[in-house]
Amino acid sequence: MESESPDVRPVDSRSGPGARLGGGSLSSHVPADQATVRRLNLGLLMRSLAAGGSRSKARLAQDTGLNKATVSSLVTELVDRRLVVEGITERSGVGRPGRTIELNTRFVRCIGLELNVDYLAGVITDLAGRVLARRRLSLPMIDLGPARAMGRVADLAIELVADCGATAQQVETLHLSLPGLIDIDAGVFSYGPNLDWRQVDVVHSLIGRLGWPGTRVAVDNDANLGAMAEYSAGPSAGSSNLLYLIGEIGVGAGMIIDGRIVRGATGFAGEVGHMPIGEPEAQCGCGRRGCWETSVGVNAVVAAASEPGDRSAEKDMAAGLAQVLERAAAGDGRTLSALRETGRRLGLGASVLANLLDPEVIIFGGHFAALQQYMADDVTAEMRSRVLGGAVMTCRVEFSTLGFEAPALGAAHAGIDMLVNDPALVLAD
Amino acid sequence: MESESPDVRPVDSRSGPGARLGGGSLSSHVPADQATVRRLNLGLLMRSLAAGGSRSKARLAQDTGLNKATVSSLVTELVDRRLVVEGITERSGVGRPGRTIELNTRFVRCIGLELNVDYLAGVITDLAGRVLARRRLSLPMIDLGPARAMGRVADLAIELVADCGATAQQVETLHLSLPGLIDIDAGVFSYGPNLDWRQVDVVHSLIGRLGWPGTRVAVDNDANLGAMAEYSAGPSAGSSNLLYLIGEIGVGAGMIIDGRIVRGATGFAGEVGHMPIGEPEAQCGCGRRGCWETSVGVNAVVAAASEPGDRSAEKDMAAGLAQVLERAAAGDGRTLSALRETGRRLGLGASVLANLLDPEVIIFGGHFAALQQYMADDVTAEMRSRVLGGAVMTCRVEFSTLGFEAPALGAAHAGIDMLVNDPALVLAD
Repeated sequence: MESESPDVRPVDSRSGPGARLGGGSLSSHVPADQATVRRLNLGLLMRSLAAGGSRSKARLAQDTGLNKATVSSLVTELVDRRLVVEGITERSGVGRPGRTIELNTRFVRCIGLELNVDYLAGVITDLAGRVLARRRLSLPMIDLGPARAMGRVADLAIELVADCGATAQQVETLHLSLPGLIDIDAGVFSYGPNLDWRQVDVVHSLIGRLGWPGTRVAVDNDANLGAMAEYSAGPSAGSSNLLYLIGEIGVGAGMIIDGRIVRGATGFAGEVGHMPIGEPEAQCGCGRRGCWETSVGVNAVVAAASEPGDRSAEKDMAAGLAQVLERAAAGDGRTLSALRETGRRLGLGASVLANLLDPEVIIFGGHFAALQQYMADDVTAEMRSRVLGGAVMTCRVEFSTLGFEAPALGAAHAGIDMLVNDPALVLAD
Repeated sequence: MESESPDVRPVDSRSGPGARLGGGSLSSHVPADQATVRRLNLGLLMRSLAAGGSRSKARLAQDTGLNKATVSSLVTELVDRRLVVEGITERSGVGRPGRTIELNTRFVRCIGLELNVDYLAGVITDLAGRVLARRRLSLPMIDLGPARAMGRVADLAIELVADCGATAQQVETLHLSLPGLIDIDAGVFSYGPNLDWRQVDVVHSLIGRLGWPGTRVAVDNDANLGAMAEYSAGPSAGSSNLLYLIGEIGVGAGMIIDGRIVRGATGFAGEVGHMPIGEPEAQCGCGRRGCWETSVGVNAVVAAASEPGDRSAEKDMAAGLAQVLERAAAGDGRTLSALRETGRRLGLGASVLANLLDPEVIIFGGHFAALQQYMADDVTAEMRSRVLGGAVMTCRVEFSTLGFEAPALGAAHAGIDMLVNDPALVLAD
């Protein structure tokens, strides 16, 4: 953020799981001092509570390696910041009974929103990631245009706060997921091909509309935030080398490598949809031919599974996908064979990513997850035949269980992650 | 390393440039204390000296943000470890004259070696990365077999020490580059397809042969160490998102992302040679068809540029490449057109990597660098037509200026990097 007025708090949202493993925003080109030590240890204690649940101070001291006096002092500070509370009295084997320390799930709230071509979705969570309210609206964003769409985004945030009986003062973070290229540092939506929006000043617009002085506002793309959701709340949570592939009209990759979200030099990493491994003659929206997403994007799937010449489903992705699922469930041969071929193509591209990045797990989200039962075998078979050392392929294949809500959920978790890793961001009363 | 006897010092060589930006081997799941602070600040001071050259303590205090008393105390410790020396007296504008502090280039030595299919190469450097001696031997490694090859590697290290008049006691690090899949943690060469070696216990074998109790020994692959060389000593040194593509029989990628070498979950990342974007019918050594390296590997280049049916150059990569260069220099049309097509194929694959990882720069090494003048235009043109936002493509294209020595040089720098980031690894007298 180049200019930062004192009453707003846009953030560099390069938090993500990186912070969890790499020591938060504390980099090593500044001298370390006592304040550094305290900040690192506040984060250590919060991570321990977030990962391992409530415990006595004595247990926390054991588990973190901090001494008891330090734990007590850190807990006092975290209580002041309303991030932890002292809970029930726990009688352990020996010594006098102590009260357990736990995350304060009563106060701080984190909002995650997703704006996509034809819907707006959102969740509001507590500090433990529990979803307190959720909303989803079908809205033709492309017709609304960027300014009115931002108005709807702000309205949705306000509604979520009301839904769970909170106040704006409790909302520490608001992250928005967008489908396209994001300039994270500037808080700007640089380009969304399927919305045809360019240079939308998202973060400042939301700060201006909401007028919540205490809320940090940030944006990221849907694939990165989907990866964040899986890293935080999915079955493979905590895998420090995790790829998330989001299937929509296009295909994007969210990459967590060595515990950090990878965004690239200019923030545009993850553009996998245009790998030249599709049907060579198929025309892509980008102007080229043979891109991967012409074979595996939702429009391609719907077209392949429809009667030749039937273009009725093309306009509405959700309706088209529903039709495909219906036909597949009815055992329609043409549909099933088209889905198997899509699975093969999906596995082909996934094998390129597996060979390049050697992840623990590749998770297929978006419409890929909805089609799991018809494609999973072919995806896995193709990957086994393509990944080096495929006979002992270590990369797991998963289909997301978080559904289409993943980016919004990941957006909320991006905020939680930021606070857990650097609790000093939250002001004391 | 599972069992570590007290007199040998194999290392987890996951140092790399990661350490430089991410705070060394100090991770945040351990409590921070005064020792942590001191270790971080020792690294900060060494990095400042390595990057910015010799300066007075007062200047170092200014540049690092450390206070003068701390700088003095840290310098004393670094002098004891023979990592820095007090040099000439510098009279600055005001105050009393002080002696400059500089890296001690007289004592510590770092060795970098590369074993490849038909040669062995090595350099020995000082702490500033200056090459004090270098050697290169043509040797048919595949005929020698792994055990005798390790003997030759150890001999080369001993010769390099003698060449520069050093003693084994001065050698703090020895890194070996190998062409294939490496288990970094175990120090094992898991599989080298072109050598057909499997499960070679490289690190322990070298430790046993050398018997140098103070030397840390580690292995990594040629692509990662080539990337390290570029990151440390190439024209784009310091670029924290840098891809290095090494062209040999196969093609491998060394990836530096957000200042860290990416190795993947099992250490096998960077296998780009088998992307299915080659000539569809071309048979690859891996058993599949259409892999990228069947179009751009050195054998493919030599075959494409030779008379049809002439297979004389296939057995000797160096001779084949020399023949291609000779024909190209003579203006042979068939050769020039084959190289242009290779450049186009190279750009095609590079665009996949650029779209996925959004690097600042992609550097072509190995035989790609030797062929630069005949391929560069086509590589760049193809990338511009394929990279999203190609008109304003931010990813730079470079051809390595470090030549075939890059992996050995990078291996030496991997050691320097480790010491600079965690100077406490070096024992005091």
